[in-house]
Amino acid sequence: MTKRIGIIGAGTAGLQLGLYLRQHDIEATIFTDRTPEEYASSRLPNTVAHHAVTVKREKALGLDHWSTDDYGYFGHHYYLGGPEPLTFYGDYEAPSRGLDYRIYHPRLMEDFVNQGGKIEYRTLDDDDVPKLSAQFDLLVVCTGKGTFGRMFARDVAHSPHDKPQRALCVGVFKGISQLPTRAVVWSASPGAGEMIEIPFLTFGGMASALVFENHIGSDLEVLRHTRYDEDPKAFIKLTLDKLRTHYPMTAERVDESEFDLANGPLDILQGGVVPIVRETHVTLDDGTIALALGDVHATVDPVLGQGGNMASHAAWILGEEIAAQDVFDGRFVEVVDARRRDRVLAATRWTNFMLQMLDTLPPEFQAFIGALSQNRTLADEFTDNFNFPERQWDVFAHPERIGAWLSKDRTARELVAAG
Amino acid sequence: MTKRIGIIGAGTAGLQLGLYLRQHDIEATIFTDRTPEEYASSRLPNTVAHHAVTVKREKALGLDHWSTDDYGYFGHHYYLGGPEPLTFYGDYEAPSRGLDYRIYHPRLMEDFVNQGGKIEYRTLDDDDVPKLSAQFDLLVVCTGKGTFGRMFARDVAHSPHDKPQRALCVGVFKGISQLPTRAVVWSASPGAGEMIEIPFLTFGGMASALVFENHIGSDLEVLRHTRYDEDPKAFIKLTLDKLRTHYPMTAERVDESEFDLANGPLDILQGGVVPIVRETHVTLDDGTIALALGDVHATVDPVLGQGGNMASHAAWILGEEIAAQDVFDGRFVEVVDARRRDRVLAATRWTNFMLQMLDTLPPEFQAFIGALSQNRTLADEFTDNFNFPERQWDVFAHPERIGAWLSKDRTARELVAAG
Repeated sequence: MTKRIGIIGAGTAGLQLGLYLRQHDIEATIFTDRTPEEYASSRLPNTVAHHAVTVKREKALGLDHWSTDDYGYFGHHYYLGGPEPLTFYGDYEAPSRGLDYRIYHPRLMEDFVNQGGKIEYRTLDDDDVPKLSAQFDLLVVCTGKGTFGRMFARDVAHSPHDKPQRALCVGVFKGISQLPTRAVVWSASPGAGEMIEIPFLTFGGMASALVFENHIGSDLEVLRHTRYDEDPKAFIKLTLDKLRTHYPMTAERVDESEFDLANGPLDILQGGVVPIVRETHVTLDDGTIALALGDVHATVDPVLGQGGNMASHAAWILGEEIAAQDVFDGRFVEVVDARRRDRVLAATRWTNFMLQMLDTLPPEFQAFIGALSQNRTLADEFTDNFNFPERQWDVFAHPERIGAWLSKDRTARELVAAG
Repeated sequence: MTKRIGIIGAGTAGLQLGLYLRQHDIEATIFTDRTPEEYASSRLPNTVAHHAVTVKREKALGLDHWSTDDYGYFGHHYYLGGPEPLTFYGDYEAPSRGLDYRIYHPRLMEDFVNQGGKIEYRTLDDDDVPKLSAQFDLLVVCTGKGTFGRMFARDVAHSPHDKPQRALCVGVFKGISQLPTRAVVWSASPGAGEMIEIPFLTFGGMASALVFENHIGSDLEVLRHTRYDEDPKAFIKLTLDKLRTHYPMTAERVDESEFDLANGPLDILQGGVVPIVRETHVTLDDGTIALALGDVHATVDPVLGQGGNMASHAAWILGEEIAAQDVFDGRFVEVVDARRRDRVLAATRWTNFMLQMLDTLPPEFQAFIGALSQNRTLADEFTDNFNFPERQWDVFAHPERIGAWLSKDRTARELVAAG
């Protein structure tokens, strides 16, 4: 039995899988159209937070280059605007970390090659399908772009939307002082949008990622369409005005004289994400399986920071199963899917659900937020559960579940924590 | 939140679930149409073996009434007939036990009532559907009979057959001496059938269950149609003749003067099983979930002794989730299904697959049996994996998997066993 694994796409899913396979002495080749240098000098691709579950996997893969002691953050401040603004704080059990993927991916590519992985820098086309399926025992597709990415049909049952739910404006900014204890500030401005401020390690050191989740049709939508390049000062003034109006908990820490994109005009990304789940695999003509991993399997809006963590979780499981199994057939896919399915689907469902709740703020959701604001134990549990989207979905899947979660007996948990 | 669980059917699944719930102080009511006394004096319902995984669950439920030291068996002898018969032996890691359900179920009913469970002895009809769904927070349906049993549609994707694959004749016999070390004798007579001899605890003590799996159209099919009642001596003579011709490994231990049904004419059951998987749940008019458990969820031919073990496994998982969760909604079903699905489906797939292999004995399957006969480590692993049907399906799901399993490196496993 040979185990030759072809990985298409050099994102978090593909690179973490590649590193896992090399750690287990399994032959792995990554295909990507960009060199580390090209990737490092590209536009900001996103602003992804890696939660503690992902940081733990990274350590196990030897990716211990960015200590959470130095660069991590330790909890979430929540701010719900309106006539009577509400704020509260929740702790993680272990820190998360925001890191510029233009630093992260090139470093993982370097590590992968140093550990005996191969990278082929080229664009794949239709002719490559039979070639690669003959060359490899399993193909793992980690990018929705190109010939391979287009193979995976939409999973209609789990894809309720056909357009973006938010007009996004995402940037890395300097001139915002960090809180004494680094934390995300997760703000909602009813009827207008949400904004997530993330302590973020970029080229020049710590800065702040601001993820503007603008409601379509609101006065914030202008942030998605205004171009920094056309008039940097006007863009920065607009952003600051919007922060002051809608997100005071971040605005109050802005130093106007410093506030700007952290590294220059490439530090901003505007657009929208269509939330989608796709079929988990296709069988190619010669019987080789092409498995979807990461974003090509499930794409979520960034509002809850689930994308990178889902991808890393699924990559780890896939790595374990590639190491454990010898034949990459339908049964292999079934086992992988059974293990990754709940977290991936829960992350998409919870994200879609929260966007809808934040659009309409129904009374039961306001009551939930109100209860968290009055009870630190609940706020901590909700915050740490950003690591475990399936636990969040357990809370929100049915209206009765919210009440059950708020009122459940946590004595045992507290005793364990105290002991 | 209330947790009032209604269980319809007093088989292994329903009773083990009921005992689990009482152990966790959860209100449980079982509905059945037969009292323990009626059940004890009925016709042999089947001849089920409980493997070590099930025995372990029973101990945890306090069902430690029939020690495997006294009544268990320790492995499988395999006999493949033909011009050059092949025999070999495989050990379990821990013993299995065959026990007459006419002893087992009444005792579990008694235990359930002693632990505060309620049993209602009556036949349910259509009027009971709204009554029970109003009375309980969750209904668990464990019998395919009656109003509730008929609710669950066939799961077409996992139900390849619409008729029995074997003509069955199953009985409890005396007059067969036990082997020095109690073991199942698992015999196949190519082109005619299979016969499983199981050390079996019945009313008078240890006896032998014989499970004749007769190929339809073979000379053995007569065993399914000949009536013991009409002429007991003729039936016993016929059975003995067939044993001698087809299953010598059992026939050689028969004492002709003693050989007969162990307790009388009710000790025999003839017929056939249509292998079927059904939908896991239905939502009743008022929103209450009715969940299928045990045979009504998946029914298998008894050739590999998987039915009772699947039912017990699923009942345990369901018990855990009822204890852990507070709302019995679609998410609840999803979590239960995700946890029980692989074992239940693997048991049905592996059983259906083995029946087909035993019908046709293709070369790759003969090679597999041949390899086991030459390698005790493989035979032990295959035998112990009767506990874990998903591991068996991992071996058989694709032709290449057999070779991979036979040739895989077992050094680590042996070192663990030796250490």
